[in-house]
Amino acid sequence: MTGEDRPLRAVALGGGHGLQASLAALRRITPDVTAVVTVADDGGSSGRLRRELGLLPPGDLRKALAALADEGDQGQLWSQVFQHRFGGSGALAGHAVGNLLLAGLLEVLRDPVEVLDHACKLLGVRGRVLPMSTRPLDMIGDVVGLDSDPEAVRTIRGQVALASTPGRVKQVRLHANGDDQPTACPQAVEAVTDADLVLLGPGSWFTSVLPHLLVPELHEALVTTSARRFVVLNLIPQPGETAGFSPEQHLDVLSQHAPRLKIDAVLADADSVPTPDRLRSAASDLGAWTLLDKIAAPAVPGRHDPQALAASLRAALERRTDQWR
Amino acid sequence: MTGEDRPLRAVALGGGHGLQASLAALRRITPDVTAVVTVADDGGSSGRLRRELGLLPPGDLRKALAALADEGDQGQLWSQVFQHRFGGSGALAGHAVGNLLLAGLLEVLRDPVEVLDHACKLLGVRGRVLPMSTRPLDMIGDVVGLDSDPEAVRTIRGQVALASTPGRVKQVRLHANGDDQPTACPQAVEAVTDADLVLLGPGSWFTSVLPHLLVPELHEALVTTSARRFVVLNLIPQPGETAGFSPEQHLDVLSQHAPRLKIDAVLADADSVPTPDRLRSAASDLGAWTLLDKIAAPAVPGRHDPQALAASLRAALERRTDQWR
Repeated sequence: MTGEDRPLRAVALGGGHGLQASLAALRRITPDVTAVVTVADDGGSSGRLRRELGLLPPGDLRKALAALADEGDQGQLWSQVFQHRFGGSGALAGHAVGNLLLAGLLEVLRDPVEVLDHACKLLGVRGRVLPMSTRPLDMIGDVVGLDSDPEAVRTIRGQVALASTPGRVKQVRLHANGDDQPTACPQAVEAVTDADLVLLGPGSWFTSVLPHLLVPELHEALVTTSARRFVVLNLIPQPGETAGFSPEQHLDVLSQHAPRLKIDAVLADADSVPTPDRLRSAASDLGAWTLLDKIAAPAVPGRHDPQALAASLRAALERRTDQWR
Repeated sequence: MTGEDRPLRAVALGGGHGLQASLAALRRITPDVTAVVTVADDGGSSGRLRRELGLLPPGDLRKALAALADEGDQGQLWSQVFQHRFGGSGALAGHAVGNLLLAGLLEVLRDPVEVLDHACKLLGVRGRVLPMSTRPLDMIGDVVGLDSDPEAVRTIRGQVALASTPGRVKQVRLHANGDDQPTACPQAVEAVTDADLVLLGPGSWFTSVLPHLLVPELHEALVTTSARRFVVLNLIPQPGETAGFSPEQHLDVLSQHAPRLKIDAVLADADSVPTPDRLRSAASDLGAWTLLDKIAAPAVPGRHDPQALAASLRAALERRTDQWR
């Protein structure tokens, strides 16, 4: 609780499985969870829908909806249907049913926020799912290590290409079709501004976590919000975009993309941090203290355990109760 | 009302636009409407889904759901989304969103009745939508007039091929994949048995109206139900399957496919019946009296006006109140 007589307002920013993990943890802490979701995906079912129909890629939005679906029969049925993928080898193979339904809603209603509010109602989501931008975005990155000259920088386009590059990503940018500057979804900016807790990560660092900092109004809201800012680090480096990255390098990259961003706490899995002192030092440079807990799921490598992550988040929130801003 | 303290139980059997018309009329008379829908479609979005995924063709089920959707904002939004078709020229072009969602529900839940009950809930349908069989059926017809010998009979397979044949359909049969006899959906048989009013037509005569009589248990229920049986005739002969058919020929064909079926009333549009005496005579052979009203929609050729058809149905129901069985 926030001291006022209302539940904690939490906002999780990310995309894909990482965002599902943070949402699964946050919903155990508070009923007031807002997901702010990347919309730069250009792969799989989402990429096909985006290319074919020119719509916002729905996949990460769908995953966030499923993660926040009500735990009763109705919510779980629709969540299962949303996540179900058609099999076989035909025109529909690989499409998630929820992606197709979100695409239909987008074509009928146009406003993605209205679409997502209707989808939330169907799945019994008590919080909210919002896109970081109401228009599909393209991701562009500077990558080194692709040529014989190790310093040669190449521009790689597209989230899939960046996430799987054998090179080393140095920096990412976002482009809106026709515009240089991506525009933030106003409701997402408002959610960050009004939040008590903002969560960055876990997730694909360059392609799911950092993109939020590349949308100017969202960047500004993250820098100026009175919410506490927690970063949850990944359990293992991601092959491709963060191959070989240490936990502290994840923080360095964050800081390079948002020099004015202060962090309150960095949460990491104790078994996934080879050099805790280096991580503490990098966190301290961002203004954060470091909390090391056992937060990995025992059965699924690379996945956070929602229960354990929730406990760690609770501990982090309690530790700073005296310093509540 | 039925004399007992409950609303009239009405069942409409058919498919496609014809069934939409009878449902739009019936919902004006009673809240207890059950649609029993053909599942032999092999064309368009439904045919593609059926071939790709081996599922019940969803298109006619979707149209029935939309026709019975609640008239409030939620019901109308979901009805609009269900009916929306993707455009363009890609893999999804022409697919109705509701067909894709029904396909997803069918893959997850398997039981079509459960699927349709969930869809009814989403669209706020107060009645029920049921398939005539829980398995996809194939339609086969004997057609003459395709060869130089006008008596030569050819076997034509598939609903689309039959509906558009330049020949003359003499008789249709249904096959279930692997079985000779199609099996009725038990809930559909029960609905017909327990009904106060059963409506056959309007609609594509051979491919949407007659198929119900080709499912043995449904045929038997239609013959033995204590409900009143009304037939609503089409406004214009359908190019292809009933090109050149007179209203009375529609009744003859019905009788050929179900010799034991008695009808209580035949409803037809006054302006669409060139020889009323012949129709009255054909109706009388089925045990029915004939009601000629102006029931065509003024703006859309070939479509019934729901309000006018409802008034005609009400008049037919009142006329026989003294003979209620």
